[in-house]
Amino acid sequence: MAEAAAAAVVLTSGGLDSTTLLALARAQGRRIHALSFRYGQRHAVELDAAARQARRFGAVAHETVDLAHLGRLLAHATSLVAGSALAVPKHGADDTAIPSTYVPARNTLFLAYGLAWAEALDAGEVWIGVNALDYSGYPDCRPEFIDAFARTAALATRRGVEGSPIAIVAPLQHLRKHEIVALGLAHGVDYGDTVSCYDPRTDAAGAALACGACDSCRLRREGFALAGVADPTRYSTS
Amino acid sequence: MAEAAAAAVVLTSGGLDSTTLLALARAQGRRIHALSFRYGQRHAVELDAAARQARRFGAVAHETVDLAHLGRLLAHATSLVAGSALAVPKHGADDTAIPSTYVPARNTLFLAYGLAWAEALDAGEVWIGVNALDYSGYPDCRPEFIDAFARTAALATRRGVEGSPIAIVAPLQHLRKHEIVALGLAHGVDYGDTVSCYDPRTDAAGAALACGACDSCRLRREGFALAGVADPTRYSTS
Repeated sequence: MAEAAAAAVVLTSGGLDSTTLLALARAQGRRIHALSFRYGQRHAVELDAAARQARRFGAVAHETVDLAHLGRLLAHATSLVAGSALAVPKHGADDTAIPSTYVPARNTLFLAYGLAWAEALDAGEVWIGVNALDYSGYPDCRPEFIDAFARTAALATRRGVEGSPIAIVAPLQHLRKHEIVALGLAHGVDYGDTVSCYDPRTDAAGAALACGACDSCRLRREGFALAGVADPTRYSTS
Repeated sequence: MAEAAAAAVVLTSGGLDSTTLLALARAQGRRIHALSFRYGQRHAVELDAAARQARRFGAVAHETVDLAHLGRLLAHATSLVAGSALAVPKHGADDTAIPSTYVPARNTLFLAYGLAWAEALDAGEVWIGVNALDYSGYPDCRPEFIDAFARTAALATRRGVEGSPIAIVAPLQHLRKHEIVALGLAHGVDYGDTVSCYDPRTDAAGAALACGACDSCRLRREGFALAGVADPTRYSTS
């Protein structure tokens, strides 16, 4: 009799990194429980892509946690919450500064939800698509943050006490964007159906059109160029 | 000119421990931002007590985060979510076992929200009323968990990168219940207006009546007895 596949919670947003993550979890035979977050972001079309990609990579469940109440707690602290007066930055990323698109404690919250679901499911892993090299401005994308959360997770839960802690799996951490693209293509990712843009438009049929100008679009475009593959993204500007 | 009071997020539930926490934060001159959670618990009358106690100790804001969506993720995993078929345990606490009233990753989630709000406010501290000695069965009440989360918090946020990390303050960690009672009484806490019971009833006027039989009631009752003070709790049973 075949051994039951190991269950994993996979955090996914419909973007380039987390769709690659789904493909890797699938390739490693995980029983995928996909988890997304709605937090008033301007790029809610991402969530439609997240649902399609979770299905495509065989997720047995996909839940979306609504963090709309965060808007009240975090008002004035971020430009990514819809209705914020802050502009999404269109200039090039500054590797030393924290971008204004940073959401306070975002990955701590996302991982905490992933951990709660994993424990409820008795799943042994939470997967997250953080990427340290091309997002060095975000404190909670750094390897030292992921390591610290992993230690917290091991101590936080019943499984940890019983000797089989829930692991935090972050396989994209040390890859450059073009390496992530190459990895995803090798595992069957259709990047034309992912949305990374911070400020997307939609066409008449409701499909996403990337702005082509935000930091996320810029990093993604460079990734395709360096990987030597055609960029499948549909842009609202030429 | 007087120096501005240091801002702190104080996690509070209307129970004995977190009301003592509010009193200590007030005594130390903090500008209190009280934070409570509604997560489908049976003891929602706690939240009314939390609101009264936050006002009493001068909180400048009190927010309640609705975690109703957790019920869906955590179904079957806990007996504290309203509607669960699991019974609240009425026997004595077993110091070596994890109680069935445990909610997966609860303190990780609560601290993550506290951290997010603290960062949005530019507050330097998140206070939590965990108590290791009388709740040793909960993995996420242990000092090693709090230490690990504190390290995560220091790495997670913009303030941490800039050299003034948000601290996790847990002053009740190493106190016994009767020591907490004595401390709170010395700081003006009215424990008659706090709710610790896991399974409270209400009287005709809507005031809480503790069951007197759950682990939380038992620990609380012992605390008053050991502190040598009258138990001000109103019980539904004699």
